Amino acid sequence: MEVRRNVLKQNDVLARELRDRFGKAGVFVVSMVSSPGAGKTALLEKTLGLLRQRGLRVAALVGDLATDNDAARLARSGAPVRQITTGTLCHLEAAMVGKALEDWDLNELDFLFIENVGNLVCPSSYDLGENLRIVLMSVTEGEDKPLKYPTIFNTADVALITKADLATAVEFDEEAAARNIEAVRPGMEIRQVSAKTGANLEPLMDWLVGLKILV
Amino acid sequence: MEVRRNVLKQNDVLARELRDRFGKAGVFVVSMVSSPGAGKTALLEKTLGLLRQRGLRVAALVGDLATDNDAARLARSGAPVRQITTGTLCHLEAAMVGKALEDWDLNELDFLFIENVGNLVCPSSYDLGENLRIVLMSVTEGEDKPLKYPTIFNTADVALITKADLATAVEFDEEAAARNIEAVRPGMEIRQVSAKTGANLEPLMDWLVGLKILV
Repeated sequence: MEVRRNVLKQNDVLARELRDRFGKAGVFVVSMVSSPGAGKTALLEKTLGLLRQRGLRVAALVGDLATDNDAARLARSGAPVRQITTGTLCHLEAAMVGKALEDWDLNELDFLFIENVGNLVCPSSYDLGENLRIVLMSVTEGEDKPLKYPTIFNTADVALITKADLATAVEFDEEAAARNIEAVRPGMEIRQVSAKTGANLEPLMDWLVGLKILV
Repeated sequence: MEVRRNVLKQNDVLARELRDRFGKAGVFVVSMVSSPGAGKTALLEKTLGLLRQRGLRVAALVGDLATDNDAARLARSGAPVRQITTGTLCHLEAAMVGKALEDWDLNELDFLFIENVGNLVCPSSYDLGENLRIVLMSVTEGEDKPLKYPTIFNTADVALITKADLATAVEFDEEAAARNIEAVRPGMEIRQVSAKTGANLEPLMDWLVGLKILV
């Protein structure tokens, strides 16, 4: 539809401006997309804590249709966190990110995390100016999700399999999941973590810190 | 937006026609909405089997953006099943349901189940002519989902908490979940099941059969 095409075009312009601004400030921006309840906030909570322990300056924006529960939960980490409430919109847009950051000095930051609204469809087409997009998929959701939601996997840079601690309980088939991810996005980086037990979180932090040289 | 309002209005007209058609045929229509991976297909698989064991004539329509995996999986129950593939649309519409049923004799059915696309936002506003709308929420998603996605809970008739077998492993707080559902939809019927272990499935079937007197 014409209306939607224009919205997307305008979003791309704003996202490019954001990306320039992030690059100039030297902040590495990571966005997270997933279905509701895949564990974005739990992972972010741990990530903010672990990166702060390394002396890095981190902050987060979190999107939800309603409530500021996630911002309140994440603010306990001591990092600056701001909630974006979208009302009826099932995704974040570059303009919302720009507005939320208006009075922030990005030069003070090493990493900015953007947690999108929990949705495997809507966020796909909206560039937020991020450097890295992570799609999370919990072991409890079933191995077929990449095949059913190919676009969101296609627009992400890494697939993060979460809640690995439940893999045995739900008989998660790791090979099938990898095969399905590979089918929709050949060569995609795949990692498996548990925010609950902490499994593989430190290697994930090492990897993120390593990517920061890109900005 | 004007465009969207017209789409919804047209959908309501078609949904009303479908509801008339369902009523005349004496078929009770149940739709299911949830996030991706909450267990709609697993529950439906069990439900089709259990109702068929009771001598009831059941069928299903299943919606997904891509793949006909779910239809193939459900067809093993022996019930007539048809996949609706929505492409980029994150919800089913009454027109798609009408088209999928075009050559079906609804008089031959007691129950028709419609599994919507996995999404906690998009399906909210689209009436499909169903008699009962079930919103599923798995114990692994977190107790806060009703507060974050109030509209979908508001448009559903019953909240079904799924994957109850994992409740202990994820430290699911049943009271908090009930409180959050109650906050967005006071008096809402809440049931808890496990498709894996079969817990509470027979009472759920009893309840569905009981509701059928409504048509």
